Amino acid sequence: MKATGDIQCIPIGSGVSVRKEVKCAHAILQQAGINATLHPNGTAVEGELDDILEAVRRIHETLHAEGVVRLVSYVKIATRTDKDPSLAGKLFVTHD
Amino acid sequence: MKATGDIQCIPIGSGVSVRKEVKCAHAILQQAGINATLHPNGTAVEGELDDILEAVRRIHETLHAEGVVRLVSYVKIATRTDKDPSLAGKLFVTHD
Amino acid sequence: MKATGDIQCIPIGSGVSVRKEVKCAHAILQQAGINATLHPNGTAVEGELDDILEAVRRIHETLHAEGVVRLVSYVKIATRTDKDPSLAGKLFVTHD
Amino acid sequence: MKATGDIQCIPIGSGVSVRKEVKCAHAILQQAGINATLHPNGTAVEGELDDILEAVRRIHETLHAEGVVRLVSYVKIATRTDKDPSLAGKLFVTHD
Repeated sequence: MKATGDIQCIPIGSGVSVRKEVKCAHAILQQAGINATLHPNGTAVEGELDDILEAVRRIHETLHAEGVVRLVSYVKIATRTDKDPSLAGKLFVTHD
Repeated sequence: MKATGDIQCIPIGSGVSVRKEVKCAHAILQQAGINATLHPNGTAVEGELDDILEAVRRIHETLHAEGVVRLVSYVKIATRTDKDPSLAGKLFVTHD
Repeated sequence: MKATGDIQCIPIGSGVSVRKEVKCAHAILQQAGINATLHPNGTAVEGELDDILEAVRRIHETLHAEGVVRLVSYVKIATRTDKDPSLAGKLFVTHD
Repeated sequence: MKATGDIQCIPIGSGVSVRKEVKCAHAILQQAGINATLHPNGTAVEGELDDILEAVRRIHETLHAEGVVRLVSYVKIATRTDKDPSLAGKLFVTHD
């Protein structure tokens, strides 16, 4: 099942900058073959739902392995049966 | 890896009442052996991260099979390495 | 306009425990006369929309004044015109 | 106090397309002088916290006046005291 979504990961107790953690999460999404576009408050994703959920799991495993003590992810998942969900389609929706 | 979290599913275009969909999603969480507690804005969950993510997938599959055309899920996942994450522990945090 | 909603505040860079900040935010909600019920992943609120939004502003001001450097709030606001929104009504929805 | 954030509005029971509602909410943000950038899962905003919260209130009022029966908004608010918060700054963070 194809899905679009949004992922934001917030390490708690890791200092004021979250730059390193955002880069790591983004790399995991790209390695998973997920269409991932950074925006100021997260990463828009498009791909197979299974791949997206598996990437979420890997982000938690990887960031903890790198020393993050607490990690919270906000994941939005959108699916639909009337047409193929796509990030491009969602943006188009808002312009006409 | 154990996790706590929160899941809220919103069908789009299914009418003003979302009662049927909330009941269905809750049943899937319980069948998966996930500790799931309804609150007014979603369901607090506690369990294995893999089980929680798999339940999210099944909720989307099942609700679409039952006729929901568009479905959006808001999923929060929290993990930590300093102690076992638990819903009970999170509530305790706020009282002392 | 009456609203129900959910508020979660996460300080970034303040250490692994967020206990003090959660207590402070909860006190602000209660002082504002907002019906506020803690759950493991946030606080369910019910009240006038203006009061809820004003409380969000005051939480940010107060926590920064107490030394929090970065603060992120996740606020959900739900309103409806077909009946009076209430937290009790939302829970009832899920049980029958 | 300056803030960055993200706003997503979802009408419930208004049909499968939410195009009209997204356009209306975006227009309200722009009329309020808020820097607002659409992305596939919401709108990134930057401005005075008071203006952002007031725009949220006006979106609910306006969409209900136009016939939306149930409306849920997901609002993220981020503030910080160590530097001026900006959407541009948040994107830069992720690239170096």
